[in-house]
Amino acid sequence: MIKIQVRTAKRKEMIDITQIISDVVKKNSVNSGICMVFVPHTTCGLTINENADPSVQADILSSTKRLVPENATYSHLEGNSDAHIQSTLVGHSILLIIEKGTIQLGTWQGVFLCEFDGPRTREVWIQILK
Amino acid sequence: MIKIQVRTAKRKEMIDITQIISDVVKKNSVNSGICMVFVPHTTCGLTINENADPSVQADILSSTKRLVPENATYSHLEGNSDAHIQSTLVGHSILLIIEKGTIQLGTWQGVFLCEFDGPRTREVWIQILK
Amino acid sequence: MIKIQVRTAKRKEMIDITQIISDVVKKNSVNSGICMVFVPHTTCGLTINENADPSVQADILSSTKRLVPENATYSHLEGNSDAHIQSTLVGHSILLIIEKGTIQLGTWQGVFLCEFDGPRTREVWIQILK
Repeated sequence: MIKIQVRTAKRKEMIDITQIISDVVKKNSVNSGICMVFVPHTTCGLTINENADPSVQADILSSTKRLVPENATYSHLEGNSDAHIQSTLVGHSILLIIEKGTIQLGTWQGVFLCEFDGPRTREVWIQILK
Repeated sequence: MIKIQVRTAKRKEMIDITQIISDVVKKNSVNSGICMVFVPHTTCGLTINENADPSVQADILSSTKRLVPENATYSHLEGNSDAHIQSTLVGHSILLIIEKGTIQLGTWQGVFLCEFDGPRTREVWIQILK
Repeated sequence: MIKIQVRTAKRKEMIDITQIISDVVKKNSVNSGICMVFVPHTTCGLTINENADPSVQADILSSTKRLVPENATYSHLEGNSDAHIQSTLVGHSILLIIEKGTIQLGTWQGVFLCEFDGPRTREVWIQILK
């Protein structure tokens, strides 16, 4: 397992980590397999979406905020229940196919860490299987 | 990696691709392992749900439309922000267990491509690990 | 594949199955790999979230109920469309990294079966790849 750190700057933010994952996989010299990416946290998530127009990220963040508002009534008293729920909706891992030593993504796809309760230093764990 | 193409006919639609995946896995003669299915797109997704009563698919589509309406106010100007957000909520990959050369599903489970911005020709990528 | 059974007691409930998965992986003597956990059902799901304060589970359940109400208008006539939709939002599988024979989780993370249409006896399928 490879561990990397990602620093987030805002409470809600999507950070493109595609290049970091791509570099890790290239160094690992696995020709064909699967790359699993995992966040060991409960208030952030991982997703795949468009990395060309940043307005897509803005729309994803505004919609997840609208669906799960920060200031609704929650049982959990730390004030970040919205982030816990958003992380469950988005998910804590993504999977990528490796071919010819390279992660395979669609033309418009990037991999994003979705920060829902930042700013924090987050860990991203990468496991490669052949 | 095996690539297949799926043609969708509507803007929002769920297409049962269970048989396609099952056939690919059977041809691959892997006794025990994992089958990863991935869509290289940012406005469609993959899910598992009931394949007996088509009204379940209708309910999933109407609820995702209600949660993320097509005509809300979005930053992204291509008019398909709803589809980008729905794809992140549903996810871009699913995983199936392979035993005795066959994908293992529950009695009522099927694998569906969720088209959120069709009609289009979509690719589905399948990776098998033993 | 290892199959375990989990008994749920309520219609909506989150059950911590971290220890069960951890025990299965320890018995399997895989040093490094991936553990895939899957539910063969269409009205429950699997997620990772905080296992310290149970109020987080209460908030996840109340938010998924609010987003997809039990008594809205649905096509499916069995009265459990909310559960089908919630299972697609949460997902039917989770992935864990195995290192030194042990599943790797963050400090606050636990693995939960999300019952959306109980009480029932649910199966959880575990596949380990090295």
